[in-house]
Amino acid sequence: MSDRKEFRDLATPEAAREAIDDLDLSPAPETVPVEEARGRVLAERIDAAIDVPGFDRASMDGYAVRARDTFGADEADPTELDLVGAVHAGAKPDVTVDPGTCAEISTGAVMPDGADGVVMVERTEEVGEDSDAESGPDRIAVRTAVAPGDHVMSAGADIAAGARALGPETRLTPREIGLLSALGVDEVPVRGKPRVGIVSTGDELVRPGEDLDSSRGEIYDVNSTTIAAGVEEAGGEPVLYPHAGDDYDEMERLLRRAADECDLVLSSGSTSASAVDVIYRVIEERGDLLLHGVAVKPGKPMLVGRLDRGGSDAAPGSDRTGESAYIGLPGYPVSALTIFRTFVAPAIREAAGQPEPATATVEGRMAVGERYGEGRMRLMPVGLLDLNDGESPLVYPVDKGSGATTSLVEADGVVAVDPDTEYLDRGERVTVQLFSPDVRPPTLLGVGEDDPALNRLLDRLENPRYLPVGSREGLRRLRDGVPDAAVVAGPTDRDVDAVDLGEWTREWGIVVPKGNPDDVTGLADLVDGDLRFVNRPTDSGLRRSFDDALGDLAADRDASRGDLTERIDGYELTVRAFESPVRKVIAGDTDAGLGLRETAARLGCGFVSLGEQAVAVRAAPDRVKREAVAELADALDDLDNLLVDLPGYSRKSRNDP
Amino acid sequence: MSDRKEFRDLATPEAAREAIDDLDLSPAPETVPVEEARGRVLAERIDAAIDVPGFDRASMDGYAVRARDTFGADEADPTELDLVGAVHAGAKPDVTVDPGTCAEISTGAVMPDGADGVVMVERTEEVGEDSDAESGPDRIAVRTAVAPGDHVMSAGADIAAGARALGPETRLTPREIGLLSALGVDEVPVRGKPRVGIVSTGDELVRPGEDLDSSRGEIYDVNSTTIAAGVEEAGGEPVLYPHAGDDYDEMERLLRRAADECDLVLSSGSTSASAVDVIYRVIEERGDLLLHGVAVKPGKPMLVGRLDRGGSDAAPGSDRTGESAYIGLPGYPVSALTIFRTFVAPAIREAAGQPEPATATVEGRMAVGERYGEGRMRLMPVGLLDLNDGESPLVYPVDKGSGATTSLVEADGVVAVDPDTEYLDRGERVTVQLFSPDVRPPTLLGVGEDDPALNRLLDRLENPRYLPVGSREGLRRLRDGVPDAAVVAGPTDRDVDAVDLGEWTREWGIVVPKGNPDDVTGLADLVDGDLRFVNRPTDSGLRRSFDDALGDLAADRDASRGDLTERIDGYELTVRAFESPVRKVIAGDTDAGLGLRETAARLGCGFVSLGEQAVAVRAAPDRVKREAVAELADALDDLDNLLVDLPGYSRKSRNDP
Repeated sequence: MSDRKEFRDLATPEAAREAIDDLDLSPAPETVPVEEARGRVLAERIDAAIDVPGFDRASMDGYAVRARDTFGADEADPTELDLVGAVHAGAKPDVTVDPGTCAEISTGAVMPDGADGVVMVERTEEVGEDSDAESGPDRIAVRTAVAPGDHVMSAGADIAAGARALGPETRLTPREIGLLSALGVDEVPVRGKPRVGIVSTGDELVRPGEDLDSSRGEIYDVNSTTIAAGVEEAGGEPVLYPHAGDDYDEMERLLRRAADECDLVLSSGSTSASAVDVIYRVIEERGDLLLHGVAVKPGKPMLVGRLDRGGSDAAPGSDRTGESAYIGLPGYPVSALTIFRTFVAPAIREAAGQPEPATATVEGRMAVGERYGEGRMRLMPVGLLDLNDGESPLVYPVDKGSGATTSLVEADGVVAVDPDTEYLDRGERVTVQLFSPDVRPPTLLGVGEDDPALNRLLDRLENPRYLPVGSREGLRRLRDGVPDAAVVAGPTDRDVDAVDLGEWTREWGIVVPKGNPDDVTGLADLVDGDLRFVNRPTDSGLRRSFDDALGDLAADRDASRGDLTERIDGYELTVRAFESPVRKVIAGDTDAGLGLRETAARLGCGFVSLGEQAVAVRAAPDRVKREAVAELADALDDLDNLLVDLPGYSRKSRNDP
Repeated sequence: MSDRKEFRDLATPEAAREAIDDLDLSPAPETVPVEEARGRVLAERIDAAIDVPGFDRASMDGYAVRARDTFGADEADPTELDLVGAVHAGAKPDVTVDPGTCAEISTGAVMPDGADGVVMVERTEEVGEDSDAESGPDRIAVRTAVAPGDHVMSAGADIAAGARALGPETRLTPREIGLLSALGVDEVPVRGKPRVGIVSTGDELVRPGEDLDSSRGEIYDVNSTTIAAGVEEAGGEPVLYPHAGDDYDEMERLLRRAADECDLVLSSGSTSASAVDVIYRVIEERGDLLLHGVAVKPGKPMLVGRLDRGGSDAAPGSDRTGESAYIGLPGYPVSALTIFRTFVAPAIREAAGQPEPATATVEGRMAVGERYGEGRMRLMPVGLLDLNDGESPLVYPVDKGSGATTSLVEADGVVAVDPDTEYLDRGERVTVQLFSPDVRPPTLLGVGEDDPALNRLLDRLENPRYLPVGSREGLRRLRDGVPDAAVVAGPTDRDVDAVDLGEWTREWGIVVPKGNPDDVTGLADLVDGDLRFVNRPTDSGLRRSFDDALGDLAADRDASRGDLTERIDGYELTVRAFESPVRKVIAGDTDAGLGLRETAARLGCGFVSLGEQAVAVRAAPDRVKREAVAELADALDDLDNLLVDLPGYSRKSRNDP
């Protein structure tokens, strides 16, 4: 029960939604030029101010006639009419069609006085003395009867002045823009875009593009740009306020300015408690805190309130009065985007008059079972995999609350799991709220080792997702049935039922500084020398080959492997990706690292080869027939091109021993 | 066979598609700031240039420790460590954690030297002499053991320098923008937007917002703005070139300039043959005509070609060489948009690297049977009606090739009907290519009389479509089973099974100029006097009441109605909408018109009442339970508000006789 206690004062998700619904984010309507109106929503009904067409208009090329003159005419017994002139589109008729006469007319031209119908040119023939002369014919034989109004679009027949053309709340797509243009409308009243101010509150945050001082623990500000893009997508106008750093007076000034200039102010949780204190203080002094914490994972740090306007040095022209809405988001990027997607984006859309896009949610089925039971709603970040088998996509949980920014692109959206749901079964139907209506679930999911040749392979595929979890973890996941394929480097203990799609080898060894200043010649130098080393994690295939080589060396010396690893300074120090040890070497943090000949060569380091290892792409047997997997296999058939210019790489035929 | 002959030289739709695929519309990649990159498509793979995080980072608030110091600690037997300082996020650690010591640490802060794990604050207690003093505690009791790395995110653990972050062709949504920001990337290489020049070629076309001279047959240019919006939607950058009018040298100059400045030049068919001649001449002199006419209705006038670049007075900075693609579209707005949607938009998307949105097509079922058999593919404009009954939406053909711009908003998309298909059955499944991925099928379809109170009613509904086809045609369509409801004014002969949802009455009569200069007092003045009159069409309920009144007058005079109508000057002259006759009166084109007291009053005319007629909203019996129809009925319950301030309108209860 102790875990539940802390949620006692938290608002329910429904209460949070209601509090946000009660905020007034709606900006005043505005008038925009039609050419900028695509995607906007009409603020009011548009009635036609003119008749379209504005005149009786020929709708065929032919001859304008008095219909009565053609009565009785047919192929056998044509009627002849005197040709008195011609009328072209865009010109004022300078003829009158009297009884017994006709005038040549082009599609779109004004019907001349007297005429009430058009005979299509195909049903006429030029006759008379001058029919071959340059001056043209003087008589026209009409071989059909027409009724008054035939092939004539009368004035206002398309749309008449005063008629309802487009209703309020109509979203303007190209065709509505076309209709507005037909009516001569060149600017339209549309719903305003809510201005949404985004205030950064973390001392450690640096704007992308600026220099980062990692020794001070600085990181790039992810949430401001992510949320700004989300605001824009939802139909709002994001305004990024400058960083206040750790100057709390400045932060307060910025919050007040944002309130004065915007309909909604968003901040995302700072890890600095004092920054949160400033926000509290500003809201309490000049505003209302409506709720503070929501019983939803990850919404605990969420704040909802109002900020009074007035008194700031707001930008000129900002004449807003009253209050601005305020919502505080969690700090972790996936959490911030999750709460934004679930609670804030719908409010912005509503204020902008924009409907939720049909692609904002998809139905899926759980690819694995998932246990849960914290007694509050969970917004579970999930990845999707579209098997294109006519079924809804597979759904698997991805983020474990680590705050990783990579989860942003590994997760496609969130599933709202009810507080009472303790277990989601494999195969269970769930609704996924996508992080963006533009998110397309990948059609291929790979897991396993990271490798430069693999990166090239992935570049050739359409919309793959690859999670570089290492060879061992990759095989485990393949066995558990979610991914299509695993990429496995080096030897492996795991016996997983899989189909080999292709394989290459890569040369691995010890990466040392350029020129090999410590004269490293092999593994023994790491064990016996005084070198600082950096390793790869145990899930990595490189590590497995390294450990096997150490085992061989230990056997040669009648020692245990543990005896040797104890003597390697840095054996336990592991870094994540294939380039990471090499970069440590370059940075001078270490004397040697586990790596590939390719990476050493590319980044200008020395390299001591310890051997070659196979890298195999292995598919789940039940996925081999999928089109995306077949494309992967096809791309692997072009191995020579994939491996070209990669030092230490070579082709390994599937039939090689 | 004669009809087929003319298609002998036309390209097949497949050949047209291939010719367009062969055109090179792809612009060079460009670099854009991340904040403007949403919706763009990466031109190349993005690898991480830095480790994220760039340092070993505490992922919990607590104490940074040497994990080894905590081994064996538990609730019963805590370990005490000396507190040597504190590290905050965004600050450089100024302490070292030696054996037996710890440092307070905030989430996100840099791990101080010596420490390799974090104990959560919840599992610790402040102890020692100074625990209550202002200087803070000097010792911390740790009640749990932690392993090295616990609650620490190591440098590069999120994403490591050198790792593949985003693949080429990734569409950038908020989450990808977040990942790019985490990597410090503030500008990205993206696929360029194809520049698409739009050249207007009709003498009669006037840009919206400018003055229109209807007597010269001028109309507003619909296609330029419609296609420009479509280009933008497909990921291109539209460039509208100024009108050349009928100056053919100028038109040639513009075409060449557009070719020099753009990747693709579009023109839409002019009704003027000479304009087409200029296009031909320019393409033949400096380019290639690849195909000329496509065997698809309405694609006959379609042109595909290339225009050589060079020699024009192109805008400075336009350094394109080689060729520009050229496509000529038909002239009717719906035809132009249809051909654009089917052939051109996919090519622009492809060149921009944009996938076709999932909402670009929908599956539907034919609401009526449709016969066809011209021996070429038909791109049939259709309307949709989403019954929200779990089935796919109803599909019905709408445009009969009239060139009406209203078809733009009455049609939601097109169905490609195979040349061999002679009949589409009612209920048959069809795929509808929507005119825009943003098109939302209406949820209510009404047909019938036009009426000012009805316009207000429609404004209160969400996404209705109403076709003002008149009472008689409305009832016919209701009987045929497509619409949900018909609005019927005045008496009717048709006996259609329908449910009355609500009803009001409106006063109708003769609209005359302000002050009634001809002293009109009733119907007899139209018959016996010398007045010019303007009528409404026979489908209109107003016309039916007018004819009935004339019938009564004829009976009084022992004459036939025809005897009377023959004597009304303008009886056969009909105009489309309820305001149209009033506007004719105001313009001085006529002395009297058939209309409503409401319209006469609103537009400042005189009015001679001839009676009241009921306007009834009648629903198809099988649609009454639909939510959208229930909303219509609900809105009708608020009739008093709908009718307020409408002169001549009154409520008619459903129970009134």
